Amino acid sequence: MNGRKLKIGVLGPHACSAEEYEMGREVGRHIAGAGALLVCGGLDGMMQAAAEGAKEAGGETLGILPGSEAAAANPAIDIALPTGLGPFRNALVVRACDAVIAVRGAYGTLSEIAFALRLGIPTVGLRTWKLLRDEQIDHGIHPAENAAHAVELALELIKHG
Amino acid sequence: MNGRKLKIGVLGPHACSAEEYEMGREVGRHIAGAGALLVCGGLDGMMQAAAEGAKEAGGETLGILPGSEAAAANPAIDIALPTGLGPFRNALVVRACDAVIAVRGAYGTLSEIAFALRLGIPTVGLRTWKLLRDEQIDHGIHPAENAAHAVELALELIKHG
Amino acid sequence: MNGRKLKIGVLGPHACSAEEYEMGREVGRHIAGAGALLVCGGLDGMMQAAAEGAKEAGGETLGILPGSEAAAANPAIDIALPTGLGPFRNALVVRACDAVIAVRGAYGTLSEIAFALRLGIPTVGLRTWKLLRDEQIDHGIHPAENAAHAVELALELIKHG
Amino acid sequence: MNGRKLKIGVLGPHACSAEEYEMGREVGRHIAGAGALLVCGGLDGMMQAAAEGAKEAGGETLGILPGSEAAAANPAIDIALPTGLGPFRNALVVRACDAVIAVRGAYGTLSEIAFALRLGIPTVGLRTWKLLRDEQIDHGIHPAENAAHAVELALELIKHG
Repeated sequence: MNGRKLKIGVLGPHACSAEEYEMGREVGRHIAGAGALLVCGGLDGMMQAAAEGAKEAGGETLGILPGSEAAAANPAIDIALPTGLGPFRNALVVRACDAVIAVRGAYGTLSEIAFALRLGIPTVGLRTWKLLRDEQIDHGIHPAENAAHAVELALELIKHG
Repeated sequence: MNGRKLKIGVLGPHACSAEEYEMGREVGRHIAGAGALLVCGGLDGMMQAAAEGAKEAGGETLGILPGSEAAAANPAIDIALPTGLGPFRNALVVRACDAVIAVRGAYGTLSEIAFALRLGIPTVGLRTWKLLRDEQIDHGIHPAENAAHAVELALELIKHG
Repeated sequence: MNGRKLKIGVLGPHACSAEEYEMGREVGRHIAGAGALLVCGGLDGMMQAAAEGAKEAGGETLGILPGSEAAAANPAIDIALPTGLGPFRNALVVRACDAVIAVRGAYGTLSEIAFALRLGIPTVGLRTWKLLRDEQIDHGIHPAENAAHAVELALELIKHG
Repeated sequence: MNGRKLKIGVLGPHACSAEEYEMGREVGRHIAGAGALLVCGGLDGMMQAAAEGAKEAGGETLGILPGSEAAAANPAIDIALPTGLGPFRNALVVRACDAVIAVRGAYGTLSEIAFALRLGIPTVGLRTWKLLRDEQIDHGIHPAENAAHAVELALELIKHG
């Protein structure tokens, strides 16, 4: 560790309600408040909500984009990385992070959650998917009560493994 | 369509019980019996079970490997494609297929299921993960009763979308 | 080695003259004649020429496609693997092969040649790019006189490293 | 354009002489001096030289790593992105940039140059590879006289296409 910032990813859907958007913004504010870099997929919906929140709290934001054009990033993204990999970039978003927080989400978010679990990256869930294995809840996704709790949990999981 | 064979993927874990291995073999036999190419991750466990089954039934097998060496493929793989992409190759296994059948599975298989759902590739499950969204079962994974049913379902889903 | 077929890639451009097309077909015929699997990018031009040649000589062909649709493969491709990775699939075409033969080619082919050299995969060139390093010809690309010679060279390089 | 910084990549080898290292540092200083983000492969040699130069001039640096551990980045990297893609990350380094400057370099750098040319990303060369096509120098790589000239050229090429 050379004093680099932690990187925390926010995973979530393109389409979200106003209430969900507000929740994503709050997650972003807490990530920036903790001094971490906000990483996301760089597009709209929950990705934009979290990036806006991080900027409001004075943080820095990185968006890893599916397409080839940096210009497709939402306006709250400081560093926009086009990949040209389509949905395969989901795995890169996750791989880049010290921990991820999934907020709501459809199948794209599910693929990111699954990659995070596969790669052993701490994964927090806020009103997102639940996973059943042999009819039992799998405890890989750490459930959070609210935005503040989600970021606290992510930080704890990074610290204690 | 130029008369190319269908490609059906079998997704499953490295480690499996003797009973699960037999189930995988039966899935492989039915895939080959239907005239389809068996696609898998090329390694051991369920991937080998399915490939062995396909070979027993006179079929052809393709393994998309995480590492850089074709020699790492199990002996039932006819065409071994090293990718050097590590677990990211999971997304390629799925992208290559007309339909996938998940048999049991840990987080790696879950990542393949999630990518298949994200990409809109028909997905059949045999004693595998279940997904809860807003506390409801998500119906993206089509549940099969047994190996024969799993392949039937996959063929139907390819045909009728 | 478990008796699997060798895999030889043909790298080349979308657009080629009738004479170049004929040269690609001859390369494909010799690859199939040597009992190897023909691997290519699956599209038109030199990729189709080589695949047609391989089919004429009774061989099998694998196309690793940039897009998401198997249907985009040329009609001489037996196994069409869509990747959805765009031009990044070039690296996968190369990684899949025991040796590659570049025939003519523009920047896409150059990227494949460079990846093959980077990965240490034997690389034969037929009227393709030459590389200068400190004003000297770099000898990573083994120059061939004609189609038959190109395949001979590839087989020798696989054998003797 | 939303006022985001330009991103300029420096491509170059692991191993370099003291004189080459100094040249890389100077390239980095000029990139930061121009207000651009320095992007590189994040490891040692020329990648470290350029990142050090950028930090000396008060700039910000992004390293796109082949491995899975951010800790492998050199100490001058501010944002370290592990990809787990091995040498395939070379294509991502290039895709992320508005222009690239190749300084010296072996086959890895050649693969990055080739991808940049393939993707139409402005490419400047400083004592690096030359490419011959039909025995003629290909003019895709814009040759620079020295570090300052390389960055000037990159900025011009971004501006005028």
